Amino acid sequence: MSSEYGKMLKISVFGQSHGKAVGVNIDGLPAGEEIDEEKLCAFMQRRAPGKNAVSTERKEEDAPIFLSGIVNGRTCGSPICAIIENKDVRPADYEGFAVTPRPGHADYTAVVKYGKGADVRGGGHFSGRLTAPICIAGGLAKQILERRGIYIGAHLASVGNEKDDAFPIYPTKELFEEIENKPLPVINGESGERMTEAIKSAAAQLDSVGGTVECAVIGVKAGVGSPMFDGLENRIAAAVFGIPAVKGIEFGAGFESSKMFGSENNDAFEIKDGKVATKTNNCGGILGGISNGMPIVFRVAFKPTPSIGKEQKTVDLETVTDTVITVKGRHDPCVAVRAVPAVEAIAAIVMLDILLEENDGIIRNQEEN
Amino acid sequence: MSSEYGKMLKISVFGQSHGKAVGVNIDGLPAGEEIDEEKLCAFMQRRAPGKNAVSTERKEEDAPIFLSGIVNGRTCGSPICAIIENKDVRPADYEGFAVTPRPGHADYTAVVKYGKGADVRGGGHFSGRLTAPICIAGGLAKQILERRGIYIGAHLASVGNEKDDAFPIYPTKELFEEIENKPLPVINGESGERMTEAIKSAAAQLDSVGGTVECAVIGVKAGVGSPMFDGLENRIAAAVFGIPAVKGIEFGAGFESSKMFGSENNDAFEIKDGKVATKTNNCGGILGGISNGMPIVFRVAFKPTPSIGKEQKTVDLETVTDTVITVKGRHDPCVAVRAVPAVEAIAAIVMLDILLEENDGIIRNQEEN
Amino acid sequence: MSSEYGKMLKISVFGQSHGKAVGVNIDGLPAGEEIDEEKLCAFMQRRAPGKNAVSTERKEEDAPIFLSGIVNGRTCGSPICAIIENKDVRPADYEGFAVTPRPGHADYTAVVKYGKGADVRGGGHFSGRLTAPICIAGGLAKQILERRGIYIGAHLASVGNEKDDAFPIYPTKELFEEIENKPLPVINGESGERMTEAIKSAAAQLDSVGGTVECAVIGVKAGVGSPMFDGLENRIAAAVFGIPAVKGIEFGAGFESSKMFGSENNDAFEIKDGKVATKTNNCGGILGGISNGMPIVFRVAFKPTPSIGKEQKTVDLETVTDTVITVKGRHDPCVAVRAVPAVEAIAAIVMLDILLEENDGIIRNQEEN
Amino acid sequence: MSSEYGKMLKISVFGQSHGKAVGVNIDGLPAGEEIDEEKLCAFMQRRAPGKNAVSTERKEEDAPIFLSGIVNGRTCGSPICAIIENKDVRPADYEGFAVTPRPGHADYTAVVKYGKGADVRGGGHFSGRLTAPICIAGGLAKQILERRGIYIGAHLASVGNEKDDAFPIYPTKELFEEIENKPLPVINGESGERMTEAIKSAAAQLDSVGGTVECAVIGVKAGVGSPMFDGLENRIAAAVFGIPAVKGIEFGAGFESSKMFGSENNDAFEIKDGKVATKTNNCGGILGGISNGMPIVFRVAFKPTPSIGKEQKTVDLETVTDTVITVKGRHDPCVAVRAVPAVEAIAAIVMLDILLEENDGIIRNQEEN
Repeated sequence: MSSEYGKMLKISVFGQSHGKAVGVNIDGLPAGEEIDEEKLCAFMQRRAPGKNAVSTERKEEDAPIFLSGIVNGRTCGSPICAIIENKDVRPADYEGFAVTPRPGHADYTAVVKYGKGADVRGGGHFSGRLTAPICIAGGLAKQILERRGIYIGAHLASVGNEKDDAFPIYPTKELFEEIENKPLPVINGESGERMTEAIKSAAAQLDSVGGTVECAVIGVKAGVGSPMFDGLENRIAAAVFGIPAVKGIEFGAGFESSKMFGSENNDAFEIKDGKVATKTNNCGGILGGISNGMPIVFRVAFKPTPSIGKEQKTVDLETVTDTVITVKGRHDPCVAVRAVPAVEAIAAIVMLDILLEENDGIIRNQEEN
Repeated sequence: MSSEYGKMLKISVFGQSHGKAVGVNIDGLPAGEEIDEEKLCAFMQRRAPGKNAVSTERKEEDAPIFLSGIVNGRTCGSPICAIIENKDVRPADYEGFAVTPRPGHADYTAVVKYGKGADVRGGGHFSGRLTAPICIAGGLAKQILERRGIYIGAHLASVGNEKDDAFPIYPTKELFEEIENKPLPVINGESGERMTEAIKSAAAQLDSVGGTVECAVIGVKAGVGSPMFDGLENRIAAAVFGIPAVKGIEFGAGFESSKMFGSENNDAFEIKDGKVATKTNNCGGILGGISNGMPIVFRVAFKPTPSIGKEQKTVDLETVTDTVITVKGRHDPCVAVRAVPAVEAIAAIVMLDILLEENDGIIRNQEEN
Repeated sequence: MSSEYGKMLKISVFGQSHGKAVGVNIDGLPAGEEIDEEKLCAFMQRRAPGKNAVSTERKEEDAPIFLSGIVNGRTCGSPICAIIENKDVRPADYEGFAVTPRPGHADYTAVVKYGKGADVRGGGHFSGRLTAPICIAGGLAKQILERRGIYIGAHLASVGNEKDDAFPIYPTKELFEEIENKPLPVINGESGERMTEAIKSAAAQLDSVGGTVECAVIGVKAGVGSPMFDGLENRIAAAVFGIPAVKGIEFGAGFESSKMFGSENNDAFEIKDGKVATKTNNCGGILGGISNGMPIVFRVAFKPTPSIGKEQKTVDLETVTDTVITVKGRHDPCVAVRAVPAVEAIAAIVMLDILLEENDGIIRNQEEN
Repeated sequence: MSSEYGKMLKISVFGQSHGKAVGVNIDGLPAGEEIDEEKLCAFMQRRAPGKNAVSTERKEEDAPIFLSGIVNGRTCGSPICAIIENKDVRPADYEGFAVTPRPGHADYTAVVKYGKGADVRGGGHFSGRLTAPICIAGGLAKQILERRGIYIGAHLASVGNEKDDAFPIYPTKELFEEIENKPLPVINGESGERMTEAIKSAAAQLDSVGGTVECAVIGVKAGVGSPMFDGLENRIAAAVFGIPAVKGIEFGAGFESSKMFGSENNDAFEIKDGKVATKTNNCGGILGGISNGMPIVFRVAFKPTPSIGKEQKTVDLETVTDTVITVKGRHDPCVAVRAVPAVEAIAAIVMLDILLEENDGIIRNQEEN
């Protein structure tokens, strides 16, 4: 059991990359919420393959089909199941990976865990394609949060050694929209160009490259979250590692804070516009697992796409000998790019889950608001 | 709800820093397990305050009292509740922090969440003192895991800008023991000296300093864990952020892998001693959320202790004006030091929880083994 | 959140009676299990409508379509999503029930909870139709359990005041098959005839009638389950009330035991065929929440179908006045009849969930057995 | 894992009957709630042993000691751990039951599950004594619910074949108080006398007798709960079976409704005092898992105390032969009597847990109310 997240809002993801469909069942969304399908599709498009020069050529329309839970364009309170049919499947590209597992992929661990019947075609259930249903759930959550003044945005913070500017201390909804409308989701267009070059260069060498995504949640008032094991950091982290290729997460100054003095890292409180704020945001908007009213900020590390065109050393699990493979198939040279909306989706799912749990009246059936 | 972790092994932590006691209820340990209380106390001592030159002077014996679950030195299958009485409490040191919250602490967020009745004395339930009950649970889990050949060790990987050596690709039980027996838990003694200096220097300036802890789990066979939201990374991360002051976690090469090419980062498989292994361990022993048989390795970022002797800017929540405070009380100048066993404890709790869920016969009632 | 059950085996049910489809996502089935679709369909047919003289005329083929999790006829370890399309829908039959709620139905409570957008057509997500996806999950669980020698059977124990014989102390697989093959699922054919008459008579009066279902699980060895809140009784009960119209559950002698003396009710232990057994089974195979090796036996009370053709008193929620309604639509006059396989399905889901949690090697990936 | 209940309000029960202490950790109570310890002790006294002519002579003061979570008489938002020390323990009374298990007890199943190290002394963790910590948690929950106008009361509905009157359709707070103040918790004093005789008579014959408890929750508005697996019935049932000796539960007309026609069982809606009500309450205040605003009513079946003074047949697990035992120790001849407050406690825990999840503003930090 594995593919489920949430406490008040339960997300169950299903499907394999080259099976009949991928999808998600969403239980716990408030009733009476209007669903803007066009807006959802626009959000889905941000992760869709084949969109720009640096993503896989696999063509999938990725239009969700809703099987339940929505009546007359509104959530009816019952679980929402949405699926995306897999059309452009080429399982033959993946024959043999259960025997000669691809380095950096879950082929080997899946075979050990599930036996020979494991579906390793295109990564099976481990595939980045599973971020599509995550984006359906996250896209709906985003719409519901926006109606309460909570906005989530992310950008590609780095590719290899090329860095984008960091979010300002107070990111805005407008900034998020600006980022979305760029060919590459970055703050600084020049950084974007250097990143594009870095990705193309890796691709040209039949290689791939890693990257990081920075995400911000604005509009969350102070006092949301819990101490210890149920804090904002715990829950966001637990969910973010559900995105394939994630290898690290940090909040606020994160690993950098481990190099700082307390006097540098502590965020001094101040009264700003009559409200409690902090002069810096090294804590990423979270103290003791609970929001302090500042933007919630975190960064996620993505490893380079494990599927590369170069020949790689591996083993033959049947003969128990060393061997080599060359991975075919269609793959993004930098998974971090299309992961940007997936990170937003995860943030939206987690925040809505937490807010549904908090008794503050922010979230209740829309009709009553 | 917040202070509970686990699925098969449930850990419920309770207590406030300056209340009557802190403790933990542990439900789900296998029955018939011998409990070595002496060994547990030795483990607890590694996090106990007042132990070395760089930790708080607060004196606590931290000897756990078991209220249930252990009969004749063995687990009887029922929940184990263990408490540690708080003796050296000085709540008066903390008066006023509900009104003028300490920067970097949870005083402000606790007051917003819980109201004026929030217990902010010494951090209340948010205090690092709560890692003591975590260490009870983790210490017991470690003993049970060791009986199955699974060992967990951690070291202080950095303090400020001073770094310890990284774990070798194959850390050993002996290395873990060596680290434990040093005054500061490091691999390289010289690094340890530089770190000690860095901490003393920060303390001398009434300041504090951050650090990182690296942890390894050895002896876990391939195939343990799950994809998506229930993977090893998700579950370890979800628990690690339960330790106060943690601001980031990364597995294997972590954030560094975001700067790498796929051809560098992918861990080539090889046959080693007749078994499948990898030549490098950039994935930290985890592929697709599932162990690949290599050591599981992760690093945790700790922010500097927020309590510092320097005057700091804050606000007065009653008058809604800016003000300053100076924090008294007894505090470690670098929380990462005493956090080392807490990180091991968390790793042990999570790994035992996951192994209890896996149907591989590694964990069953001891009597039958 | 509501429509999910399980700990190791997670069942998420979705769909509304008159929506596009109903379905279930099943996460946690062991990998490598052969799926006998024909057998599953035969099981589904036992609850399918339009099957005999005493069930609704709504025609649904109820053939599940598997969207994921099954490759080459075997479970691959990833979640299994299966759907059943709703074809014979007549939402117009249900217009107005959000305003003049049907007595005994969830129309009123759904509207209060979810607002005017609640889908009350045919009971929406509250409909007995949702037992179809439960039967998919349960049917698969039954196949997996049977492979381990665990069999589940149920019969219609009573309709109104007409009673079937009770299960013998040791029910057998053969008895279960015999029951399945009768027109009405009973032990004693004559009882069946009287029950059929009772149902027809109620239907003729535009009325409905209640009933009970008795279920037995055989082949579960002693020691399965847990004390207190995680016992066999707790988990079976928690799931059984997920079937619409259930109003009570009792284990073994159940409510009858409340009238007995201890000396009558206590099941004396005996050695039978070299093994520990009990002379009677008043405890229903469960002591302290844990199986004692005897058949697990429980009975479930079903209220009469709330939809009846007679005129009934209700209220108009808009005008807040008393009024009357007559319910059209196609309804079983006794929901208990078609609920028999649903009770088995629930028992199978719960038992497999619990057995997956127990470390006894009964359940592991099929390939290794 | 077993001894934990709840979703928003987590109750973790620990302790064995003849160990050092029994207790409970309660995580998730709202902050700022005043705790009336005197009232709690009065509630605890209702289940305390040695109180009347028909309960065990074991003397326990059962005064809870709070280790955490309460500051200045109010909940501070952190987990509340409360313990009761076991003083009058006589473990020697229970020697040998791991070898010759008592019929009707969990001795046998505990030994199979946990091995020889299982603590069967006085039932260990399976003992009725564990209802004491349940009553601590439930007593606190009751106080919090009462502040919101929700009252819970229960009475001994039957002992053997002697029945008390049933609750009227609208039970009141005053009725609950009246019941509490009687020597035996009944509605009709004459019934109480007959029950007392029945219990004494059973005791005189070295026997015991079963009983039922009826419980009502008043003041819950319509719309609370969820369909399918998370309904009021599911959650109450899942928790009630955590009380030792429970063998059945039914809501509203329960098993009786299985004998009724739909036209009898359906509760007609009516406008009463300007609000929606029902003329009867056969559904026990629950439709589709959701409250309809009527009193929530359920009945619980308790088997007779398994410990009886009569000689009983059992087996010797070491020699695998038939044998007999006579059970000593101090035992209630009718566990249902002292279970009355335990049933109320469970109802309070479940209702508070559910209400904390519902976003209706009923439950929030007291200070803000």
